[in-house]
Amino acid sequence: MGRRRGRSAGYVTGSDRRPDIAIGELGEFGVVARFAARLQPQGPGVLLGPGDDAAVLKPPDDPPDDRIVATTDLLVEGRHFRRDWSGPYDVGRKAAAQNLADVAAMGGVPTALLVGFAAPPQLPVEWVDAFADGLREECAVVGASVVGGDVVRCDLVVLGITAFGSLRGRSPVTRSGARPGDVVVVAGRLGWAAAGFVVLSRGFRSPKVLVEAHRRPEPPYAMGPVLADAGATAMVDVSDGLVQDLGHVAAASGVGIELESAAFEVTAAMRDVASALGADPLRWVLAGGDEHALAATLPPDVAVPTGCRVVGHVVEGAGVLVDGAAYDAGGFDHFG
Amino acid sequence: MGRRRGRSAGYVTGSDRRPDIAIGELGEFGVVARFAARLQPQGPGVLLGPGDDAAVLKPPDDPPDDRIVATTDLLVEGRHFRRDWSGPYDVGRKAAAQNLADVAAMGGVPTALLVGFAAPPQLPVEWVDAFADGLREECAVVGASVVGGDVVRCDLVVLGITAFGSLRGRSPVTRSGARPGDVVVVAGRLGWAAAGFVVLSRGFRSPKVLVEAHRRPEPPYAMGPVLADAGATAMVDVSDGLVQDLGHVAAASGVGIELESAAFEVTAAMRDVASALGADPLRWVLAGGDEHALAATLPPDVAVPTGCRVVGHVVEGAGVLVDGAAYDAGGFDHFG
Repeated sequence: MGRRRGRSAGYVTGSDRRPDIAIGELGEFGVVARFAARLQPQGPGVLLGPGDDAAVLKPPDDPPDDRIVATTDLLVEGRHFRRDWSGPYDVGRKAAAQNLADVAAMGGVPTALLVGFAAPPQLPVEWVDAFADGLREECAVVGASVVGGDVVRCDLVVLGITAFGSLRGRSPVTRSGARPGDVVVVAGRLGWAAAGFVVLSRGFRSPKVLVEAHRRPEPPYAMGPVLADAGATAMVDVSDGLVQDLGHVAAASGVGIELESAAFEVTAAMRDVASALGADPLRWVLAGGDEHALAATLPPDVAVPTGCRVVGHVVEGAGVLVDGAAYDAGGFDHFG
Repeated sequence: MGRRRGRSAGYVTGSDRRPDIAIGELGEFGVVARFAARLQPQGPGVLLGPGDDAAVLKPPDDPPDDRIVATTDLLVEGRHFRRDWSGPYDVGRKAAAQNLADVAAMGGVPTALLVGFAAPPQLPVEWVDAFADGLREECAVVGASVVGGDVVRCDLVVLGITAFGSLRGRSPVTRSGARPGDVVVVAGRLGWAAAGFVVLSRGFRSPKVLVEAHRRPEPPYAMGPVLADAGATAMVDVSDGLVQDLGHVAAASGVGIELESAAFEVTAAMRDVASALGADPLRWVLAGGDEHALAATLPPDVAVPTGCRVVGHVVEGAGVLVDGAAYDAGGFDHFG
């Protein structure tokens, strides 16, 4: 996909399209000030927010736990979002969500974000404003805030997001603890974002519920700590597709995972769209990315938490089987 | 500056130039493995390193201090480095250095890095190897290590670096505490990197000492905590140029700063090159970026630590004067 310059209707979603100045006219420090006006960090954990060489954070002390969960992702225009498909508010929500979800996938509670922002000087200032609003509102879902960042020039919009969180006394849930006999559960939506992506790819803008799911993931943040407390032996954020991401769990744990396709929910909207487009909706569920559901393994003797769906079990062996057979998940690869 | 594709001699510095495969052939997870092989996190502060949804860090406990210093920067090819001017090892050193220096500028001791890596699939694998070596060795200077990251595809090399550190019981030194009567000190080199940049811009490759200073900053990391312990009232990392960065201190502190040009060191190498190129070496010292020296203000009654040079003082007023006059620092702006 080529670089995009200048303005297009896609820069703005659902707002007036009055002419606005470009960030190049505002300058680096003007853009920083613009972010700062919309991103007031909050909470007792922020000892020093934006405006200095670094932020200073303090872990929550109820319970006392000085460990910090930290994760970073780069989002590149044209690879992770398209400015003609997603408005800046949705890009902000999504950029925050995918990093906050990584914290939840460790069993952690997100607390803060750092935001690196690279953009072309032609980008309208209103894009920055709406992007900042999206960041702020996604952070608010979990009680986190943006505590600092960096603004630089680039021909493309590139976002470097770092999320922090607290385990609040829990052990981190890694990918390597799954044991034969465990059940596999998922929390959150699966396949919706992939369906929305295909809808947009074909030039459509509806069903809105699927298109919106592509633009704005809704990770089940609270289920991360809930699954950790329930005794999850392994957990992963579903970012590249369930089969592929569970493949990482299987490899790290030295086990096999068997999924039953009948256990998944395929919504009526997904079935209808798949039928109209000649697609397989189960493929969206099993191999679709960008959904940021959580997948976890639980010992067989524990109660499955409300909000989780049991979709398979852990066995001796290796790899991930669906209905007893190998499944070609397509292997999303960021260099593919 | 245009995007660079394919190989050039600039990719490799001082190593054999045997043909190598491109990272696109290796795939995302192959590149991640390549990084992991060269970036083994170490130290008691790393409870969980790369390979999961997030890293888990524990602050050093001598003395007990659960606060974490955190800072992020994006480095964009063609803006912050050029692959035909700097080899990958130097880019790794520089990317780490500029973020570790931000931690030092708070009075902190760096502990860890997260590294987001965006690159075109044509990039040779040896570029990744040497870049990782550079990251590792710059981290080793301060006892830090790379604890996680992200690998994605992009037409340009874009680096999203996040650094962490500990204050080890100190109060963070912000930009806002300078008081009239304080002296202004600098630690570390000034003007060398800017001189090297100009040398390279004119198509030269020497003097090597200046070119190397552009390629690989040498921040005076240890002076951050030393200046904090000495009672620094404000401190800043010199990344955009001394006058501009001290301007942030003046504005945040509500004071003026007066510098004396005779107080700065202009080396013979800088004078010779400036003379040959018809340039003003003092301008490199006062307005040159990318050096990552530290500038601090100290109360007048404290002993100036060894390794620091007194270059001016803090006054009532606003802005930064040089020899009593306003100085046009050129105002480096990332959107300029």
